Amino acid sequence: MSKYIHIQQEAFEANMQLPKLNLVLFTFGNVSAADRSLGVFAIKPSGVPYEELSPEKMVIVDFDGKTVEGNLRPSSDTLTHAVLYKHWEKINGIVHTHSTYATAWAQSLRDIPLYGTTHADHLTSDVPCAAPMSDEMIKGDYEYETGFQIINALKEKNLSYTDVEMILVGNHAPFTWAKTAAKAVYNSAVLEQLAKMAFITESVHANVLRMKDALINKHFERKHGPNSYYGQE
Amino acid sequence: MSKYIHIQQEAFEANMQLPKLNLVLFTFGNVSAADRSLGVFAIKPSGVPYEELSPEKMVIVDFDGKTVEGNLRPSSDTLTHAVLYKHWEKINGIVHTHSTYATAWAQSLRDIPLYGTTHADHLTSDVPCAAPMSDEMIKGDYEYETGFQIINALKEKNLSYTDVEMILVGNHAPFTWAKTAAKAVYNSAVLEQLAKMAFITESVHANVLRMKDALINKHFERKHGPNSYYGQE
Amino acid sequence: MSKYIHIQQEAFEANMQLPKLNLVLFTFGNVSAADRSLGVFAIKPSGVPYEELSPEKMVIVDFDGKTVEGNLRPSSDTLTHAVLYKHWEKINGIVHTHSTYATAWAQSLRDIPLYGTTHADHLTSDVPCAAPMSDEMIKGDYEYETGFQIINALKEKNLSYTDVEMILVGNHAPFTWAKTAAKAVYNSAVLEQLAKMAFITESVHANVLRMKDALINKHFERKHGPNSYYGQE
Amino acid sequence: MSKYIHIQQEAFEANMQLPKLNLVLFTFGNVSAADRSLGVFAIKPSGVPYEELSPEKMVIVDFDGKTVEGNLRPSSDTLTHAVLYKHWEKINGIVHTHSTYATAWAQSLRDIPLYGTTHADHLTSDVPCAAPMSDEMIKGDYEYETGFQIINALKEKNLSYTDVEMILVGNHAPFTWAKTAAKAVYNSAVLEQLAKMAFITESVHANVLRMKDALINKHFERKHGPNSYYGQE
Repeated sequence: MSKYIHIQQEAFEANMQLPKLNLVLFTFGNVSAADRSLGVFAIKPSGVPYEELSPEKMVIVDFDGKTVEGNLRPSSDTLTHAVLYKHWEKINGIVHTHSTYATAWAQSLRDIPLYGTTHADHLTSDVPCAAPMSDEMIKGDYEYETGFQIINALKEKNLSYTDVEMILVGNHAPFTWAKTAAKAVYNSAVLEQLAKMAFITESVHANVLRMKDALINKHFERKHGPNSYYGQE
Repeated sequence: MSKYIHIQQEAFEANMQLPKLNLVLFTFGNVSAADRSLGVFAIKPSGVPYEELSPEKMVIVDFDGKTVEGNLRPSSDTLTHAVLYKHWEKINGIVHTHSTYATAWAQSLRDIPLYGTTHADHLTSDVPCAAPMSDEMIKGDYEYETGFQIINALKEKNLSYTDVEMILVGNHAPFTWAKTAAKAVYNSAVLEQLAKMAFITESVHANVLRMKDALINKHFERKHGPNSYYGQE
Repeated sequence: MSKYIHIQQEAFEANMQLPKLNLVLFTFGNVSAADRSLGVFAIKPSGVPYEELSPEKMVIVDFDGKTVEGNLRPSSDTLTHAVLYKHWEKINGIVHTHSTYATAWAQSLRDIPLYGTTHADHLTSDVPCAAPMSDEMIKGDYEYETGFQIINALKEKNLSYTDVEMILVGNHAPFTWAKTAAKAVYNSAVLEQLAKMAFITESVHANVLRMKDALINKHFERKHGPNSYYGQE
Repeated sequence: MSKYIHIQQEAFEANMQLPKLNLVLFTFGNVSAADRSLGVFAIKPSGVPYEELSPEKMVIVDFDGKTVEGNLRPSSDTLTHAVLYKHWEKINGIVHTHSTYATAWAQSLRDIPLYGTTHADHLTSDVPCAAPMSDEMIKGDYEYETGFQIINALKEKNLSYTDVEMILVGNHAPFTWAKTAAKAVYNSAVLEQLAKMAFITESVHANVLRMKDALINKHFERKHGPNSYYGQE
């Protein structure tokens, strides 16, 4: 048995949540789970249908994107995952999907405005949309540069990756991350819901305003602040 | 066995309807069921996934929001439920969800206009949207004040809680109530459907008018008036 | 066994299709099936959940709306069904739903424009929307008058009920009919699909034109004309 | 056993994917699978519900549209399939559906603009929409002419059928094709997803621009170029 079976199992289970949560069509998505003590992550193999996945098929890759174990080719987005793991030390799970509403917002090149408490329960800013890369970056090491595009977009907007665990990559699709792969999948489902509700909100009221700060802070803190009182811990 | 098992059972069954009716993502919703002779209600524990719920896990709380029985922390919205039970003596069930279309309308800060008989079968006014609270109220006892925000919004609009069993809380999400928890869940599903149909109606006809009064009254009375002739009672 | 069991069975099966085809929320719909030789129709009892229906519970009513057999109260829309059966001799099935998109169009008081062949495969005109009734008609025998409102709307638009088997009742919801109850259910599902596609079509192209006549006639005739070549008969 | 059983089996399995992928209502779609060495294709019989299909019921037709084997009447769109097989030598599977969003775009007579990488992963141009036929063509051999309308639309837009495996037929609905019937079904599901996302994208940003060329080429080549690195081959 592989010494990586624990993250293979974690990545497998998280990947299998994507079709259950209606976040993927065919194989348009991937999840990885990292073990920082071993310096590697397990990621979905490229183009393999979800119904054919098993924990053993998860490919083990290091934080430079080099395959460490596995016979299958890892997801074509592997280098993006590797860059994020290398630069963001507190995350252990990453998800990429082409979920319908979040991807439509990414195609519109717009941040998703914070319109309500469902959004504020998870982040206190708009969901950022990273600009498309320059032509040079695209022609270079594309997936690698996608990782930097995400990191730089957060920096430019003065956002912390521990506060904002989701982003839209312009003209492309969303990425989410978290301390665990399961939580990153949760974030992808939340993002899809926020994207759908914001679309309907703007359709129903063309000039709707963002929610005010007092309400944003209250909702975030009741779930995430030092005196949070949501959940059982 | 707890002497509250009857309302725990009722609250459990009503909570389990929320995912079946596609009204919640993850744990974004809660139902409570009250026993007025005992002066308490049973409510979903905070942040516990629906698939892990059981009747025994429902927390027993009094109408001041104090936990009377149960090891788990009650829903973070418990004080809102308590305020409503305390002030509205004829209700025994309350539901809070972040259902997609109703929440999008709440985010738009608009009442849902009465466009058709599906709406009039359930209430004769627009679905009211309570304004967001003042910053002071938000920084105070937030969930407690949410209850008063709901009560006051109905008063200001001259609506009775026995006639109008649903409201949107601006920038937040819907609350519904009724004589039973099961009926309150029914109201949440109806509200979501009204919200979806009103969104499509306005998209198809930007300047559509409300339905006329004669039709509003007819439909409401055939279901709820003294000479109602809908259903088997 | 009732001598009406054949139409009770037919009405039961047709009613059970409504939730399967996602055309109803709770009990917001009903189907009837007529036997013209016996001068009666079987219709869903009022307000009974679909999961509790059985053929025996279908109520037998004559074409004047009088209950002939059955312990349950028939659908509150029974008089509308009765009027249509009485005046339209070639139909043996009627369906009423509050399906989402068709009802939204009814609320907009607009006919559904004929935008494509999916529509023309079933009717060569826009889906008509009957105007809301006058206040006098509403205050009178409402469901009875709804039947005449439907009949008169077709007349005013020079449409035949054998050519156009569906209508929107303004501010209310759709009715469909056919030679059998099963076909009337089919028409309700087709109408919902036409309503959804027309909504998206107009959203994607605000000034879209109706489909041209040559294409309308071709598609209708290949399914319904004397030289039709769709299906196996 | 028929000597065509291999393509009957292939066509059967591909047809059964259409309802599973939510691409058809009732019988509004058909798939065919060709064997070029035998000069025939297997196609769904006309108007037969999916649940009643079996491999043996697939009708065998030659590339001139003449039935070679089978007791049932082939799909009413058979001549369109025949024309495409005859003129496009590299395809072995064709799908026609009336899927909701793609059909709505066809009704709008608009090409689907290339807004994101999900689109560019599959084709580097907008999804073309063929203009409705002239009245003469419609009154002539309609389905036969539909085939030529598709072929000519690609030619006029300088598109190759091996690069662009999908089209909208104006006022009608989509057709897709590929080297296999299974891949053609995949293309239909992708097209429906692209159509839905483009609808939302434009709703969220009315003046959104197409994605830039560098990104289009990068994404197409990573899946389809000589140095493609998506999937396991």
